[in-house]
Amino acid sequence: MLPAVQLDLSVSPAELTAQLIDIESVSGSERPLADSIQTALGACDHLTVIRDGNALIARTELGRPQRVVLAGHIDTVPIAGNVPSRIDRGLLYGCGAADMKSGVAVQLKLAMEVTAPAMDVTYVWYDCEEIESERNGLLRLSRNSPDSLAADFAILLEPTGGVVEGGCQGTLRAEIRTAGERAHSARAWMGRNAIHEAGEILGILREYQAREPDVDGLRFHEGLNAVGIRGGVAGNVIPDECVVTVNYRFAPDRSAQQAAEHVREVFSRWQVTLTDAAGGARPGLGSPAAASFAAAMGGTPRAKLGWTDVARFDALGVPAVNFGPGDPALAHTRGEHVRIAAVDECARQMRAWLLG
Amino acid sequence: MLPAVQLDLSVSPAELTAQLIDIESVSGSERPLADSIQTALGACDHLTVIRDGNALIARTELGRPQRVVLAGHIDTVPIAGNVPSRIDRGLLYGCGAADMKSGVAVQLKLAMEVTAPAMDVTYVWYDCEEIESERNGLLRLSRNSPDSLAADFAILLEPTGGVVEGGCQGTLRAEIRTAGERAHSARAWMGRNAIHEAGEILGILREYQAREPDVDGLRFHEGLNAVGIRGGVAGNVIPDECVVTVNYRFAPDRSAQQAAEHVREVFSRWQVTLTDAAGGARPGLGSPAAASFAAAMGGTPRAKLGWTDVARFDALGVPAVNFGPGDPALAHTRGEHVRIAAVDECARQMRAWLLG
Repeated sequence: MLPAVQLDLSVSPAELTAQLIDIESVSGSERPLADSIQTALGACDHLTVIRDGNALIARTELGRPQRVVLAGHIDTVPIAGNVPSRIDRGLLYGCGAADMKSGVAVQLKLAMEVTAPAMDVTYVWYDCEEIESERNGLLRLSRNSPDSLAADFAILLEPTGGVVEGGCQGTLRAEIRTAGERAHSARAWMGRNAIHEAGEILGILREYQAREPDVDGLRFHEGLNAVGIRGGVAGNVIPDECVVTVNYRFAPDRSAQQAAEHVREVFSRWQVTLTDAAGGARPGLGSPAAASFAAAMGGTPRAKLGWTDVARFDALGVPAVNFGPGDPALAHTRGEHVRIAAVDECARQMRAWLLG
Repeated sequence: MLPAVQLDLSVSPAELTAQLIDIESVSGSERPLADSIQTALGACDHLTVIRDGNALIARTELGRPQRVVLAGHIDTVPIAGNVPSRIDRGLLYGCGAADMKSGVAVQLKLAMEVTAPAMDVTYVWYDCEEIESERNGLLRLSRNSPDSLAADFAILLEPTGGVVEGGCQGTLRAEIRTAGERAHSARAWMGRNAIHEAGEILGILREYQAREPDVDGLRFHEGLNAVGIRGGVAGNVIPDECVVTVNYRFAPDRSAQQAAEHVREVFSRWQVTLTDAAGGARPGLGSPAAASFAAAMGGTPRAKLGWTDVARFDALGVPAVNFGPGDPALAHTRGEHVRIAAVDECARQMRAWLLG
């Protein structure tokens, strides 16, 4: 095994981001970066460190009445000619610049330097966020070490453009199936056309009134949509089956089970097969730690509509928000970059908040 | 080249059917059977014979004021353990027993024995009916020898259960395409769902009132049906396209072009792409030859709803009907068979009619 690349932690958060980009860490190949982070953490007497595969947990144990988690994934999507990093007119370019090595750099700077935070802090770095859920490092940690993740509040440093995005909506997919009866299409009235019947399902979807509930003070916005449809036997056959795949995005005041019940109720006249579901996360902005965080970061918090790993904290009973430098729209692009000033500002704001 | 198998034409039509079944003639492999038929026709001085590939035309040239075509295909679908033929309790079993070697046997018996018909007769045997249209032997003859097919009336000896089925409906397929705008399904309102819009197309199909026009005294029954639908990009994407494939079965008072115009009009709000179309055939039961044929065969003529090769005669300006022994529902089945008495009765009726 090669010795870990030494990180220079004396530099600015943005400069540290550049060092992190230059240690490639595509999902499944995070070991070199995990080793470098572990080596750096080894120098910190104020932290208790746990390693689990290529994930790391580092905790202060100061007996504070409140504990907050700062979490980030260390993997990236595949390199696209955008490593090593480069700087151009105040922007730092490179794979993971926005999603989310800038967030990881902020975590690392805070972990090193904030030795006496006003609340206890659990730093979490994990692997395999960009690939199939079953390999997700945070999922693994939540199974192997749920107690180490316990907290009053969690912040996931995914790119949000520096705005607090609270919680996230859940997502559920189901297949709605119509049944008909085959016949030769020259004598259509001998059969029953399952595709025609699917028109009623599409009619329900067109008329569907999506909820926009307030949850913990944030306005969510649900959606129920067809994302796929298939049917047909042959060009001269009245089809006996049509399958509409729907995706229900539901606010975090509903559990995945309640969401499934809702979908079954909406399409009660047909066979409904659930294919996958993941619950959302409440933003929990009513809790003292979360409220003080939102106030300290400024701006108007908004609901996170896409599903993110904050839902895994919610599943552990920890309300969570997304907050990090970088534009989420740049994630996974060849030209991915982050404003240098935004990274340093994020670190400054969060340091001030942690010091209380 | 092997010498052709000698057919024994002294036997009954049903016994001749058995001989024909025993000479395998799956589409594309009709040469041995075509050779045997040509050899048999060579003994008939009253017939002028044309061979084109594995198709044959044999004509009387008696200068009669009327001419009728008796046509049949000599190919079968692939053998399914049902050759050689066998007889069981009055039924003749074997590949092509119904579709349509019994009809071919009737043609052959009439061609041999009716040397002085009341009207001139053109017998047509052709290849490759059971496969893609472009290889169809009747299509080839209609291009190579249209004059040899000219007539006042045509009878296609496809199985109809001994009932005159007049003309046939046309068939047209088209793709109706909705266009939307992609968006992440967590923010569906940023896009436009093309699958939802397809619900309006399905609504039109559900409400569609199919025509049932009388054409030349027969009641046809149209149909406009979805036979396929597809749409969807990914489980988390609002789809920007949905394609509904429709099949329009239209009565022979409409041309294929008029049918296409009708479909474009019904779906005028969307992009319509014609994928294939074949016009139908008028039954022409008003013509003297056709009327006398229908009267002689007895029963109540009905409209043919499925598309058949009679449409190729219609395209040549020859009204045509389907009439043959055998149950069309048995065509292409492993247990295909024909009633022996039905074959002989069909030949008897047609002989009497030809003799006038």
